[in-house]
Amino acid sequence: MQIAFALYDRFTALDIIGPFQVLAEIPGVTATFVAEKPGPVRDHTGALSLVATASFDETTAPRMIVVPGGLVDPNGADDPVVRWIRAVHPTTTWTASVCTGSIYLARAGVLDGIEATSHWGSLEQLASLGAVPSAERVVIRGRIATAAGVSAGIDLGLTLAARLAGADVAKAIQLAIEYDPQPPFDAGSPAKAGPEIMELVMSTLHDPAHAE
Amino acid sequence: MQIAFALYDRFTALDIIGPFQVLAEIPGVTATFVAEKPGPVRDHTGALSLVATASFDETTAPRMIVVPGGLVDPNGADDPVVRWIRAVHPTTTWTASVCTGSIYLARAGVLDGIEATSHWGSLEQLASLGAVPSAERVVIRGRIATAAGVSAGIDLGLTLAARLAGADVAKAIQLAIEYDPQPPFDAGSPAKAGPEIMELVMSTLHDPAHAE
Repeated sequence: MQIAFALYDRFTALDIIGPFQVLAEIPGVTATFVAEKPGPVRDHTGALSLVATASFDETTAPRMIVVPGGLVDPNGADDPVVRWIRAVHPTTTWTASVCTGSIYLARAGVLDGIEATSHWGSLEQLASLGAVPSAERVVIRGRIATAAGVSAGIDLGLTLAARLAGADVAKAIQLAIEYDPQPPFDAGSPAKAGPEIMELVMSTLHDPAHAE
Repeated sequence: MQIAFALYDRFTALDIIGPFQVLAEIPGVTATFVAEKPGPVRDHTGALSLVATASFDETTAPRMIVVPGGLVDPNGADDPVVRWIRAVHPTTTWTASVCTGSIYLARAGVLDGIEATSHWGSLEQLASLGAVPSAERVVIRGRIATAAGVSAGIDLGLTLAARLAGADVAKAIQLAIEYDPQPPFDAGSPAKAGPEIMELVMSTLHDPAHAE
């Protein structure tokens, strides 16, 4: 079973590595990193490149696709990622996204009238593109699975692993990656973090200069 | 402030991407991926390569180092990762590991008589190398920080982000990566998963054929 993990310039690394580390452990799965062209693809910090081993054009029938978020919006309906989703989605068993990866799904027309989620900062944009936004951490509707921001891809991966291989295999993978989270703070959602921490995110972390 | 993230053949990707995604967001941090030679370095699944941009030899004075785990043990005290840790540890502000990365720290002599942790399956080996094993998820002793298996690197990253930049910045990063974990199962530790799931991990997931 081929699972294709999409890469594009300025993607967010944990968005894609979270589900990859879970799903690639399922016996029988072949994981492939796919981009517009094979070769290194730079993440949103600029400090890291992951290597794509196949192009979108040659990856025509993956059983599952996973699209990560990133700091750049897709350039409308003609973005290479959007075109690829539109091409392969009709024959996938699962079409999945993490974080603002759901913006790409929406632009490909996959989420029209469908409940889906995204990073908390992008739910309004998701709605404006025709999806029905949900603040749930993992949303499964039919064969479309979307996860909230960045780290939610691990929860998405485990949810899909259970669907693909059964609950025991999903639990074994959870144990293998020792996913027994103990965050030192409880600030993982806007409601829990409060307005001052939200402001700090907006003002400090995601400025474009830092991303370059 | 330079943080050097170590790579070596058959490292585990989430071990290093978890802390990277947290620590690289701290304003003023320069993240560098380092390996024996610059270029692509293959992960333990064989499906993914991350690109190192600097060699161990030219990375002589990082302020922090983070060493991931992987499926191969270091080849004794002369492993390139072990030699690099021994060279740079004396001048780091923080020396950190995730999962079996602590085995490399131990082989470098950094953990002699020091409390430290590792993947649950490697605590005995850690003890045999002179460390005092702990089952805590994140262990900080002086300037040495070790995390339990794979996903524990995110908790380590947030803990160190608070030490480096204050609790508010750590909380802002937690919110930015929406780290509000909601695993679909509660099987993230041996005690929670039970013996049957542990057996499934040993028998199915980590066989060498799968890793190739």
